[in-house]
Amino acid sequence: MSKPVILVTNDDGILAPGIRNLIEFVKPLGEIYVVAPNKAQSGMGHAVTINKPLRLEKISKDSEIPEYSCSGTPVDCVKIAVTQVLQKKPDLLVSGINHGSNSSVNVIYSGTMSAAIEGAMEGIPSIGFSLLDYSFHADFVSAKKHIIRIIKNVLNNGLPSGSCLNVNIPAVKENELKGIKVCRQARAKWNENFDHRKDPSGNDYYWLTGEFKLHENNKDTDEWALKNNYLSVVPVQYDFTAYNVIPEIKKWNFDA
Amino acid sequence: MSKPVILVTNDDGILAPGIRNLIEFVKPLGEIYVVAPNKAQSGMGHAVTINKPLRLEKISKDSEIPEYSCSGTPVDCVKIAVTQVLQKKPDLLVSGINHGSNSSVNVIYSGTMSAAIEGAMEGIPSIGFSLLDYSFHADFVSAKKHIIRIIKNVLNNGLPSGSCLNVNIPAVKENELKGIKVCRQARAKWNENFDHRKDPSGNDYYWLTGEFKLHENNKDTDEWALKNNYLSVVPVQYDFTAYNVIPEIKKWNFDA
Repeated sequence: MSKPVILVTNDDGILAPGIRNLIEFVKPLGEIYVVAPNKAQSGMGHAVTINKPLRLEKISKDSEIPEYSCSGTPVDCVKIAVTQVLQKKPDLLVSGINHGSNSSVNVIYSGTMSAAIEGAMEGIPSIGFSLLDYSFHADFVSAKKHIIRIIKNVLNNGLPSGSCLNVNIPAVKENELKGIKVCRQARAKWNENFDHRKDPSGNDYYWLTGEFKLHENNKDTDEWALKNNYLSVVPVQYDFTAYNVIPEIKKWNFDA
Repeated sequence: MSKPVILVTNDDGILAPGIRNLIEFVKPLGEIYVVAPNKAQSGMGHAVTINKPLRLEKISKDSEIPEYSCSGTPVDCVKIAVTQVLQKKPDLLVSGINHGSNSSVNVIYSGTMSAAIEGAMEGIPSIGFSLLDYSFHADFVSAKKHIIRIIKNVLNNGLPSGSCLNVNIPAVKENELKGIKVCRQARAKWNENFDHRKDPSGNDYYWLTGEFKLHENNKDTDEWALKNNYLSVVPVQYDFTAYNVIPEIKKWNFDA
């Protein structure tokens, strides 16, 4: 059997330690291609570049793994990888490993997960990985064994149409990791604030800040799993329809 | 009873005809505040600005409606409006009217809908409106009656926690509009391509192009409603968990 084709991308940029580790992890598992942003794209959500053209540069020379840096967002990277680099769908897309959590509602803001969601929309089994440590020197290796197990399961089983996986990894030592929990997105909210300052010309500017507030502690959530030293695996869908709300809205009187 | 506080935003920028029309429509319904991007932000998805500060400028002078232009994304506009401009949650958020469709999977890329989703995450009843006409001189007035009916229903009934509304409007004359249909997001896919060119220095660049491919024609979908001259109303949620996939993934062997 020929080796599976694996596309690797991220949102922290092609030189970030998170993606360098992920490339090493998947190297033995398939034929690897890397297409990732040429700069950090954190918090880009599902942004696409439509008002300006993209640049795509092959940055690997003689290495066995072709690597391309792209001027666009993580979603752009997936689109250009499939149509221009691979010219076919890969067998797997892995995005990350993100420097920082994409659990709970953070999935919505995440460029890492948007790349995975875009992969799912293209019919590619896709996984986003994130480590709960923002630092440049984070330890991505402790969870290597578990990351590879998740990837092997997706390579063997595929993923149901319309879904991808959001994997978050607690920032603990290897011997403290308890395993893998399949869970749902926890209910939570960012209580935003802005740090309001004046520039040297006396004009106002604002830095986004905020505090993450968990609204539940149920054991079937990703936040519970992470707090208890499990990797959380949440299947994510891109059908955003709130089906349970449809009957309620249908009762409304739109003719009044 | 005091007038409801209504926040108006969009992704085409504060000067776009779509938002100017929406402001006129909601003016009689409440106390209006406008906080919208200072430039077009189409395709920004749920992007937030975290690596640079935001600018916020009051552009209205003596008018009855305070209007602020913001240097950030639609999601940034919602966050800064709630915390810095209103300093409380409004009673309603309306986003749009977008120049162009946000039906089916387009909801995922849409800045208009991301503003509405952000509103829902903050606990604000929120609606995104989009007209199926990209042109600057699109006719936003034909659907005025229906838009106001939807807004009045949300003001009266609220929206279930965790959801907002995605309203799309067919680009037809007033007398051709058949009414409002509550529906689900149609299954569809963009078949992307890139227009690959060389710049004057001989370097490659790529324009994103693509073709929208509908994968179903079922009568309960937004695409069917729009094709049959109905406004489509899809309740949208920000819990992305694919609940039906959880049992399947739980069967996997993560210890192998």
